[in-house]
Amino acid sequence: MNYSLIIHILGIVTQLCGCFMLLPAVTGLFYRETKHALIYLILGILCAALGSLLRLCKSKNSTFFAKEGFVAVTLSWGLLSLIGAIPFYATGNIPYYHDALFEIISGLTTTGSSILTNVEALSHANLIWRSFSHWIGGMGVLVFILAILPMTGGSTMNLMKAESPGPSVGKLVPKMQQTAVLLYAIYIAMTVLELILLLCGGMPFFDALCHTFGTAGTGGFGIKGDSLSSYSPYLQNVVTVFMILFGINFTFYYYILIRKLRDALRMEEVRTYLLLMLAAMLLITVNLTQKGFGSASSNFQMAAFQVASVMTSTGYATTDFNLWPQFSRTLLILLMFIGACAGSTGGGLKVSRFLIYVKQVKKELIQQIHPKRVHVLKLEGKALPHTVVHSCNTLLMAYTLLFAFSMLLLSLDGFDFTTNFTAVLATLNNIGPGLNVVGPCGNFSEFSVLSKVVLMFDMLAGRLELIPLLILFHPDTWKK
Amino acid sequence: MNYSLIIHILGIVTQLCGCFMLLPAVTGLFYRETKHALIYLILGILCAALGSLLRLCKSKNSTFFAKEGFVAVTLSWGLLSLIGAIPFYATGNIPYYHDALFEIISGLTTTGSSILTNVEALSHANLIWRSFSHWIGGMGVLVFILAILPMTGGSTMNLMKAESPGPSVGKLVPKMQQTAVLLYAIYIAMTVLELILLLCGGMPFFDALCHTFGTAGTGGFGIKGDSLSSYSPYLQNVVTVFMILFGINFTFYYYILIRKLRDALRMEEVRTYLLLMLAAMLLITVNLTQKGFGSASSNFQMAAFQVASVMTSTGYATTDFNLWPQFSRTLLILLMFIGACAGSTGGGLKVSRFLIYVKQVKKELIQQIHPKRVHVLKLEGKALPHTVVHSCNTLLMAYTLLFAFSMLLLSLDGFDFTTNFTAVLATLNNIGPGLNVVGPCGNFSEFSVLSKVVLMFDMLAGRLELIPLLILFHPDTWKK
Repeated sequence: MNYSLIIHILGIVTQLCGCFMLLPAVTGLFYRETKHALIYLILGILCAALGSLLRLCKSKNSTFFAKEGFVAVTLSWGLLSLIGAIPFYATGNIPYYHDALFEIISGLTTTGSSILTNVEALSHANLIWRSFSHWIGGMGVLVFILAILPMTGGSTMNLMKAESPGPSVGKLVPKMQQTAVLLYAIYIAMTVLELILLLCGGMPFFDALCHTFGTAGTGGFGIKGDSLSSYSPYLQNVVTVFMILFGINFTFYYYILIRKLRDALRMEEVRTYLLLMLAAMLLITVNLTQKGFGSASSNFQMAAFQVASVMTSTGYATTDFNLWPQFSRTLLILLMFIGACAGSTGGGLKVSRFLIYVKQVKKELIQQIHPKRVHVLKLEGKALPHTVVHSCNTLLMAYTLLFAFSMLLLSLDGFDFTTNFTAVLATLNNIGPGLNVVGPCGNFSEFSVLSKVVLMFDMLAGRLELIPLLILFHPDTWKK
Repeated sequence: MNYSLIIHILGIVTQLCGCFMLLPAVTGLFYRETKHALIYLILGILCAALGSLLRLCKSKNSTFFAKEGFVAVTLSWGLLSLIGAIPFYATGNIPYYHDALFEIISGLTTTGSSILTNVEALSHANLIWRSFSHWIGGMGVLVFILAILPMTGGSTMNLMKAESPGPSVGKLVPKMQQTAVLLYAIYIAMTVLELILLLCGGMPFFDALCHTFGTAGTGGFGIKGDSLSSYSPYLQNVVTVFMILFGINFTFYYYILIRKLRDALRMEEVRTYLLLMLAAMLLITVNLTQKGFGSASSNFQMAAFQVASVMTSTGYATTDFNLWPQFSRTLLILLMFIGACAGSTGGGLKVSRFLIYVKQVKKELIQQIHPKRVHVLKLEGKALPHTVVHSCNTLLMAYTLLFAFSMLLLSLDGFDFTTNFTAVLATLNNIGPGLNVVGPCGNFSEFSVLSKVVLMFDMLAGRLELIPLLILFHPDTWKK
């Protein structure tokens, strides 16, 4: 294990965390929350100092295997969470440190599950920090570092592999650093575009910024008790569209940028993603209209928002879908499992994995009918490497096992089955709200400390796609 | 497709079905239910005649591929169900044919889910037919045919493969027919043993026979409204032990028979199965005792019965576990997924598959830590063939997809999430009862016809392990 290089990376992450704290500090000063602004400022300076100290630890060799990539990423996320939780606790807005930790992990992993019973009581500085954490976590901190710092070839690939969601890392361009720069460029451009469109609709700047961060990272922290219910239909629709856009594989935008429009439109994953979404929107609209939930057009607007929110794992709400008929509720739950596209900021198992699973079942059937025929698994027109398929399969198994184990631990709190099931689902897939107690109008405050720890683990496991996190617990990782 | 051979096999199945009906006919005569006895008798004769007609269709060639094996098994089960449902309907004990079909499919697949609101209103003839169907389905009709009729080599293997549960077919002895005979010999011996032990405990002969059939096939149809609650602790304990025994891979008994005791005790699957069971029993006992459900010893007795019943997919109940604390309920649900051993009469995903899943996750972790090390997946000390692992994986995927789709269709009925989830779980894993509406004291009568059809499909899919059933829907199966 190349400890010195890992410590060096952790140093950069700490410094970066300090820089990020400037935003809440400035916000605090602007809204005359001097005490809160000072806390962020002091913490930011301390981070910068600590980071510089850690960066002194320089490695002689730059060998950096997959194992080190996983460990570096997991420890970075852990450190970022531990530091990021401090201001919530220090400002007194969240009385317990473990609750503050839950909130920031939920933010960084772009989950959006909250332990707050009254979000509107938070200071502006804390609100923007909470939403900003979505934006930071959405594309990834390590990817950000790759974009701004030159690093050696092997290491960057292993870092990116560990932090990027999806079955395989799509390098847009041959050089890793350029890929990272491109990803962030697209990310920032789309963020700015949404911000402008929200401002045009008359949303106050602060609200618009928070909601844009939440949409871009497909996070879902709102700044009002009723999430987005009280905003105008125009604003809700803008958010709907951008949730969908941020859930699309960023390769799609890259193709558009280099004017390969046909390649973009041919992307199997994106087409499946949009098709599933549209189907779900229509089915829910029909279901709601049949059950007398108002006009078809207003139902479609609600359904579109909710489907986009849930499938992209954002988690905003314009209505309490906990009160919807069982069919619509079940459909939303199933979409939670599938999630957004790989290579997007969204969570869940990812549409491409869903495709790989469905294709394997099809292949098995054909194999049984024609035992001698050779059948190749393809995605996006290319044959899938055996290792990718295998990783997808083991992820499903690890995911199921973690899901079961989490459910069991949560059940000690005595909540009903639906609450526990959707609480694990919502955190492991980085969505945010579930059903019943943890529905869009509920929150996670009532869980015991043990359950909160389990759910924090699940959020991190979901964002980093399990393996990097599980590797930490394997003794071989720490052997010489 | 070798149609004539398949029709020939269907003929044998029909004849056999006719023979099976002698038992309820005799029972009916004994209890002076003359009308019911006559219905069974006439139907039995008709089956024998129809079967002989079908058997006239003889195949010129005996080539019989995996595809034909699957189709023959699925059609046999379908035919058996369609015929087996007739008496329930014809005697008027079940007013709708689709309900009668649900009941017999539940019986044959050893599920034990019932649409009856008052089981005690059934005639003795119908009660014994219902329980006998568990015994028939437990080891398999085609396996029975293999045991009594000489068939050519290739075909028998493909039939057995399609009907036997588990990731791979364990031939006990090189010859398929001898394996089938051995399996049925063990099955019958254990059935007789349980019957004697129940009779020794003072259970009336009729009750003992029904409950033995239900235990042997790990089915779970009771003959009383409260399942086994009203029987003595001795009788409940006998059933507990035999449920556990029938959930063990029959290879274990074969090893004991040929005095390879050490090999038997070394079986990884059996050890995991017993260990998981014991752990669950203890955990539930502690949970129940903590929550004030009576003394530890009586709780252990209840927990042992319920864990054995649920994990072996039998589904008997001595208490309404729907009223247990959430932790115990959740633990039971998780055990439902795992199920019994492969090569037993039990359902679920099977312990051996569970082991294969866990081992794959472990392997993936080690592979990531040591990319260059070659790691071989082993089960029972032998390297697992790639095809077996692959089949296990696709089964999990097909299972999950079918689970999701079934949930969605069931949700149209408007029952709560827990009811729908456990209804699908209980049928797809051939267990019987679920939670809430379909709990041990509830039943499946309230579901719509559509939902019942979905659940019937799930029961068959669970018993035949999906692929044989899904193959019927693939157009390639029917192409020349």
